[in-house]
Amino acid sequence: MDVDLTLLLVLDLAGVFAFALNGALTAIRVARIDIIGVLTLGVITALGGGIVRDIMIGDVPPATFSDWRYLAVAATGALVAFGLGARLTRLTMPITVLDAAGLSLFAVTGAGKALEFGLGPVQAVILGAVTAVGGGTIRDMMLQRVPTVLRSELYAIPALVAATLTVVGHGLGPVALAPVLAALACFVIRMVGVRLDLHAPRPRGFEPQE
Amino acid sequence: MDVDLTLLLVLDLAGVFAFALNGALTAIRVARIDIIGVLTLGVITALGGGIVRDIMIGDVPPATFSDWRYLAVAATGALVAFGLGARLTRLTMPITVLDAAGLSLFAVTGAGKALEFGLGPVQAVILGAVTAVGGGTIRDMMLQRVPTVLRSELYAIPALVAATLTVVGHGLGPVALAPVLAALACFVIRMVGVRLDLHAPRPRGFEPQE
Amino acid sequence: MDVDLTLLLVLDLAGVFAFALNGALTAIRVARIDIIGVLTLGVITALGGGIVRDIMIGDVPPATFSDWRYLAVAATGALVAFGLGARLTRLTMPITVLDAAGLSLFAVTGAGKALEFGLGPVQAVILGAVTAVGGGTIRDMMLQRVPTVLRSELYAIPALVAATLTVVGHGLGPVALAPVLAALACFVIRMVGVRLDLHAPRPRGFEPQE
Repeated sequence: MDVDLTLLLVLDLAGVFAFALNGALTAIRVARIDIIGVLTLGVITALGGGIVRDIMIGDVPPATFSDWRYLAVAATGALVAFGLGARLTRLTMPITVLDAAGLSLFAVTGAGKALEFGLGPVQAVILGAVTAVGGGTIRDMMLQRVPTVLRSELYAIPALVAATLTVVGHGLGPVALAPVLAALACFVIRMVGVRLDLHAPRPRGFEPQE
Repeated sequence: MDVDLTLLLVLDLAGVFAFALNGALTAIRVARIDIIGVLTLGVITALGGGIVRDIMIGDVPPATFSDWRYLAVAATGALVAFGLGARLTRLTMPITVLDAAGLSLFAVTGAGKALEFGLGPVQAVILGAVTAVGGGTIRDMMLQRVPTVLRSELYAIPALVAATLTVVGHGLGPVALAPVLAALACFVIRMVGVRLDLHAPRPRGFEPQE
Repeated sequence: MDVDLTLLLVLDLAGVFAFALNGALTAIRVARIDIIGVLTLGVITALGGGIVRDIMIGDVPPATFSDWRYLAVAATGALVAFGLGARLTRLTMPITVLDAAGLSLFAVTGAGKALEFGLGPVQAVILGAVTAVGGGTIRDMMLQRVPTVLRSELYAIPALVAATLTVVGHGLGPVALAPVLAALACFVIRMVGVRLDLHAPRPRGFEPQE
C-alpha cells in the first residue's frame, strides 16, 4: 500500500477514535445512559456525519459503515470512555486536540469525496462541514440538547473554512498541498477558538424562552 | 424557458424563501443559537422535506440540494431573519401567508415527483406531506420541541388534502388544472385554520406528563 | 403462495401492528399530540427501523413503505391506540408480548436482508438491531425523550443476540432453523428482562446533570 494512503488511513482512524471517545464522554456526562447508549452515541458521533454525506451523494452502503476497521476503532473509543469514564476528565486538552484533528480531517476528506462524486463546489463545502459536524449533531439530538454546533463556539466555521479551501484547491488543479493547508487552517482556527473562547455572532433583540 | 415552468420556479423559490425565513425566525425565538444555527435551521426548514423525499425515492443527490438557486434563496431567507430579527414580528401575517403558499406548493410538487418516480398513490400522498412538513419537523427536533405538526393547528392536514387531490387528478389524466386546485385547497384550509384557530382532534382520557 | 411465506408475512404484520399500537400509546402518554401525531408516531415506530436499514443498504423506495399492507396495518395499530387510548392500559402484558415478538422478527428479518444485499456480518448484526429498535428511537427523538433503548431495560441486547444468531446460522449454510432459534432467543431474553427488571450496565463515577 502507498505510504501516503496508509498515513491518511491512520490519521483518519485517529480522528474516528477521538470523535468516538469525545462523543461517548459527552453522552455520559449529559444523560443517564447504559453501555448500549455509550456505544451507540460514540459510534454515531464518529461515523454519523460521513454516513449522512454518503446517503446524500448515493454511495450506499456508506463507506465507513462498510469498513469494519472504522466500526472497530469507533467502538473501541466509546468503550474506553465507558471504562475509564470520570478519569478521562484530566485529559480534556489532549482529547480536544484530537477532536480538532478529527474535525479538520473529516471536513477535508468529506469535501473531497463530494467533489469526486461530481457535486458542485457549494454542495461540496456543505457536505465537508456535514461530515465534520453531523455525527455530533445527531448525538446531541438523541441526548435532547440543542446541538452545540448551532449554539456556540467556533466548530462549524473552521470546518467550513477547511472544506472551502479544499474545494478552491481542487479547482486550481491537482495540488497535493491544498488539503494539508485546509486541514491545518481548520485545526488552528478551532484551537484558537477554544483558547480564546470565541463564539459565532448571535441574533440581537430576542430573549429566547428557554 | 417555458413561461409556465418559469412561473413554477418563481413560485417554488418564493415558498423556499418563506419557509427559510419563517423557520429561522422560529429558531431564533425558541433557542439561543448563533448565525450558524440560524442558517442551518433556516435552510433545513426550507429544503429538509424535499431532501427526505428524494432520499426515500432514490433521487440522490437530492434535487433542491443540487440546485444552487434553492440553496441561495434558502440561505438568504435565513440571513434576512438573522439581520432583521425582532423587527419582522410586525410582519406575522404576510409571513404566514407566504408560508401557507410554500406548504401548498411543496405538497403538490412533492406528491407529483413521487408519482413520476413510480411510487403508488398512498406513498405519493405521504411523500407530498413529508415534502411540505418534513423540514419544519427536523428543525423542531433540533430545537428540542415536539414538532408542532404532531401537536396542534391544521398544518399536515391541508398538505395531505393537496397531495391527495394531486394524486387523484393525476389518475384522471393529464389535467393541468388539478395541481392548481390542489394547491388552492391547501392554501384555503390552512388560512381558515389559522383564522379560526382550528386544531386536529386529540386523544381523550390521558393527561400527558409534560 | 408458499405456506411458510404467508406465515412469515402474517407474523411480520402482527409485529408491525404491535409496534404501531405500542408506539402510539407511548406517544399519547408522553406528549400532548393530536391525531396526526398519533398516526405519524405509530407508523414511524413500526416502519422507521426498516426504512433506515433500507436507505443504508440502498433498497429505495424502502420495502415496507412501498407495500400498502404494511402502511395499512401500521396506521390501523396507531388508530386503535387513538380510539381506545386509556382503556388499553389494562392490556399491558399482551402488548408487551406482541412487542417482544415484533422485536424478535424485525431483528431476524433485518439481519437477513442485510446479508442478502451483500453486507458483511458485523454490518448485518448492526442493521438487524437498527431494524428492531430504530423506529422507537426516532419516535423518542420526536417526543423529546432520550431514547429508552440507550438508557435502560434489555431491548437492544436481545435484538443484537437475534441478529448475531441469524448471521452465524447463515454462515453455517441454509439452515431454516437458525432464524427461528434466533427469534426465540430474542423473545425469551426480552421477556425475562421485563419480568426480572434487568438492565444493561451503566458507566460509573458520573452523575449526569439531567
